[in-house]
Amino acid sequence: MAPIVNGRVIFNEIPREFPEPGRTLVYDTSEKLDPDTVLLDGGVLIKTLDLSIDPYMRSRMREPHVKSYLPAYELGKPIDGLGIGKVIRSDNPMYKRGDIVHGMIAYAHFSIYKGADRYPNLQLRILEGFPKLPWSTYLGVLGMPGQTAYYAWKEFSSAKKGERAFVSTGAGPVGSLVIQLAKRDGVMTIGSAGSAEKVQFMKEIGADVAFNYKTTNTLDVLQKEDGIDIYWDNVGGETLDSALEAAHFRGRFIECGMISGYNTGNKTPITNLMQVVSKSLTLYGFIVIHLAPKYEKEFYEVLPPLVASGEIKYREEITPGLENVGNVILSVQKGLNKAKAVVHVADD
Amino acid sequence: MAPIVNGRVIFNEIPREFPEPGRTLVYDTSEKLDPDTVLLDGGVLIKTLDLSIDPYMRSRMREPHVKSYLPAYELGKPIDGLGIGKVIRSDNPMYKRGDIVHGMIAYAHFSIYKGADRYPNLQLRILEGFPKLPWSTYLGVLGMPGQTAYYAWKEFSSAKKGERAFVSTGAGPVGSLVIQLAKRDGVMTIGSAGSAEKVQFMKEIGADVAFNYKTTNTLDVLQKEDGIDIYWDNVGGETLDSALEAAHFRGRFIECGMISGYNTGNKTPITNLMQVVSKSLTLYGFIVIHLAPKYEKEFYEVLPPLVASGEIKYREEITPGLENVGNVILSVQKGLNKAKAVVHVADD
Repeated sequence: MAPIVNGRVIFNEIPREFPEPGRTLVYDTSEKLDPDTVLLDGGVLIKTLDLSIDPYMRSRMREPHVKSYLPAYELGKPIDGLGIGKVIRSDNPMYKRGDIVHGMIAYAHFSIYKGADRYPNLQLRILEGFPKLPWSTYLGVLGMPGQTAYYAWKEFSSAKKGERAFVSTGAGPVGSLVIQLAKRDGVMTIGSAGSAEKVQFMKEIGADVAFNYKTTNTLDVLQKEDGIDIYWDNVGGETLDSALEAAHFRGRFIECGMISGYNTGNKTPITNLMQVVSKSLTLYGFIVIHLAPKYEKEFYEVLPPLVASGEIKYREEITPGLENVGNVILSVQKGLNKAKAVVHVADD
Repeated sequence: MAPIVNGRVIFNEIPREFPEPGRTLVYDTSEKLDPDTVLLDGGVLIKTLDLSIDPYMRSRMREPHVKSYLPAYELGKPIDGLGIGKVIRSDNPMYKRGDIVHGMIAYAHFSIYKGADRYPNLQLRILEGFPKLPWSTYLGVLGMPGQTAYYAWKEFSSAKKGERAFVSTGAGPVGSLVIQLAKRDGVMTIGSAGSAEKVQFMKEIGADVAFNYKTTNTLDVLQKEDGIDIYWDNVGGETLDSALEAAHFRGRFIECGMISGYNTGNKTPITNLMQVVSKSLTLYGFIVIHLAPKYEKEFYEVLPPLVASGEIKYREEITPGLENVGNVILSVQKGLNKAKAVVHVADD
């Protein structure tokens, strides 16, 4: 094969607020690569099939000296994240031509995986032995978002039958699985999201109460429903303040994310934190990869059959074209995506 | 004995900000009582010896419909709280004349204890079989403050040798025991308090770093000391925000109190809560009485000998006179007390 253009999504500038397509992230076509001859040097040549677009990616668009659980994106280089790829050539005995792999890959048509040097706990996983489902599901309900919901619900909810859980972004890939897991534990669920369509989806998956936080006051709903024992937080800010106010004694707060602050400096003031003391609340922050050793095996035994049979429902919004990564990232940060966001890059 | 005046501290008005002596709480001498003949009706006549003055008392000076872990004080009636008393007469077979008891009693010279109807988990405890120590210690290092420090440190700190703990109000009855327990676990400790005298006391009990938060910036100190793994929070507000900023990955926050907000509506804004997510922090709110079943026996086996031998140090500020309860309560809310605040009412 002759050299081909290797499109890549380059981190071009640290954003102050929302990441602007074409400025924060630039789709670059200046690199050429010959898949047949490119030097692997012990690595694996991956062809990208599908890419996950997730809220946490905003946190990597920062100054490199600011520490966090994942390194900052490097200016001038392709961003990376969770994706599905196909092995084209391999110098690594763990992978062979034709393997479908899942893990942290560069947001480019082709990339060379050098082993788990950058993400020691996240080496590429070969997808085999699972029920036949679209690869994209391994970026959503059967991937990191699904694992996040499953691991942390099991680890932190201490759910008892008859308790009441509130789930923000309840129509998203994490929240929608949380609602379904909560229902399976006999927990009454209240879900919030930002559109009528998302409210409808939350009802379809079994939320007892589903509301649009843009048109209905969150605290009013929570108080009308007699408060909550568990809060799954994806948004922080005012929603978290309302949940603190409405929490029952000994409530559990699973602090998965606070997207309301991601594009405004993460400094949203919270005024009800005294409720943590007066109501004996516990707030659990966590990173999904640290819970993996305890729950990953169980997750891959339990979830794929439930998804394949339709007992666990999920939704995806698949956008074709690597060049659209910047737009989809912005859409996810603004909550304009309708479901788990995936960019489809190639069929195989 | 002829009837005598039974001085009582009456809850007179719900305060908006700080509780004003003579207005919020009024020392009342209108009741007369004959200790020899007053009707017990199954109860126990208690003569008050010492009364504890604690930060949490502010939370009981509220509208009665606002729920919390302890009931609101009743307007027009004496306040109650932790005290030491002597049994004068008893209609209850559990108590006999001369017993020294510890528990929730009315802030009055004499009161009739009717059993644990109001505080089911807090029946009066007879103080016997312990090392000979002043009764006041059972209101401080060997009472609720000491239990608070001991139980919650054991339950939530997950302390590992070489870790770093920050303790706010580190010279107070809770904080000073936390510092000493942390040191015994091999933890480096940083203590903050509001006067040079308190800083000196924190150094005497072994704090590696002790500073006056009124003259030194908390965040500067925590960052200079390379951050913290454990934060014992007694104050909330800006100090909590600094601790969130300086926390290490997987830090534990023991949320014991937030006195900085008690007299301003408990609505101090916290802006660094996103750190809970990005650093996998856990915040533990708790009520000491819920940890008692697990730790009380151990506490009374371990602590009294250490206090009696001087290995565990404590300080008290004893103010004579029931009529001074209102002043001492205000002093504690303002942090003007120098050590564990006790009002001494009678010698025996």
